[in-house]
Amino acid sequence: MSHFQPVALEHASRLINHGPTVLVTSAAADRRNVMAAAWSMPVEFTPPRIAIVIDKHTWTRELMTASGAFAVCIPCVTGIDLAYAVGSVSGRDGDKFARFNIEAARGPVLGMPLIEEGCVAWMECRLVREPHTEDAYDTCFAEVVSAAADARVFHDGRWRFDDANTDLHTIHHLGGGNFVRSSSPIAARPL
Amino acid sequence: MSHFQPVALEHASRLINHGPTVLVTSAAADRRNVMAAAWSMPVEFTPPRIAIVIDKHTWTRELMTASGAFAVCIPCVTGIDLAYAVGSVSGRDGDKFARFNIEAARGPVLGMPLIEEGCVAWMECRLVREPHTEDAYDTCFAEVVSAAADARVFHDGRWRFDDANTDLHTIHHLGGGNFVRSSSPIAARPL
Repeated sequence: MSHFQPVALEHASRLINHGPTVLVTSAAADRRNVMAAAWSMPVEFTPPRIAIVIDKHTWTRELMTASGAFAVCIPCVTGIDLAYAVGSVSGRDGDKFARFNIEAARGPVLGMPLIEEGCVAWMECRLVREPHTEDAYDTCFAEVVSAAADARVFHDGRWRFDDANTDLHTIHHLGGGNFVRSSSPIAARPL
Repeated sequence: MSHFQPVALEHASRLINHGPTVLVTSAAADRRNVMAAAWSMPVEFTPPRIAIVIDKHTWTRELMTASGAFAVCIPCVTGIDLAYAVGSVSGRDGDKFARFNIEAARGPVLGMPLIEEGCVAWMECRLVREPHTEDAYDTCFAEVVSAAADARVFHDGRWRFDDANTDLHTIHHLGGGNFVRSSSPIAARPL
């Protein structure tokens, strides 16, 4: 049973506000791909827009340029090995969904492949073409057009990480396959 | 005694690879400022380049546009209240360094204000002017020209978060003054 529930678009940017590592899925014609990306960030809340770095030599970049769309899936602790695996081989060498036995649903708005197992949220994104920054910095801008998250860990527009759901905490790549986990919530106090 | 040691420029992008919340410091003529920013990411390792979202209406943006430079200081758990405080008021209403009693050193290359107390790393950045993305997405690109980190938690080009240095873990903003901490290092296993 899926615990995923829709996320209101005005809350979508919060899904990556804290800098998690993400999976990027893409599809064009009858080809599809999934890769890992450590470098993404929101750039606006309303409309929800993000920037993400996707190397121009990747198969993902080719597919997303062809379709004008991609999805961001946010892995959690149980998805670490998957995140690292899909980040270590190229989809040009064969479909990674088949190779790693990844189940993918079809996105409601853009039809992008969406991964829920080992993940706690996803966002379908429409590429906003910016040829100069795509070329100079591999930085792609996009607008989020649909989003959902695992209600056990994100609800009412906020992440709810606590000691009871550590397996569902997002992961953050330090480099070389080493990750840390989003944990120990702390509220700031006024100075 | 400062625990900060220089970070080789080829490792500088790793300082923000995992998506921490950062402080942005700026200075031009005899004015200076510090604000918090949740939205930043590396865009390249060599040369080390980053993208960061700074609202065009902020005092920081005005100063960094005037000087062509800024610095990113990375707060840790002990700097949470400071990060939230400097993110909640404008420097136009008075110098925040004085108001919050923040000690700032002078950056070795660009002379930017650098905060070490409550922080675990800093990077001096030279703005790479991109008028279109600055205007359309408040997204500023920059090259890192000097960097340093607290050797107790970053050495030999890598973050070393563990249970013995939790106060020095980086922080990640969920929204509304709620942060999580980078913790529980986990290494991916091959699938």
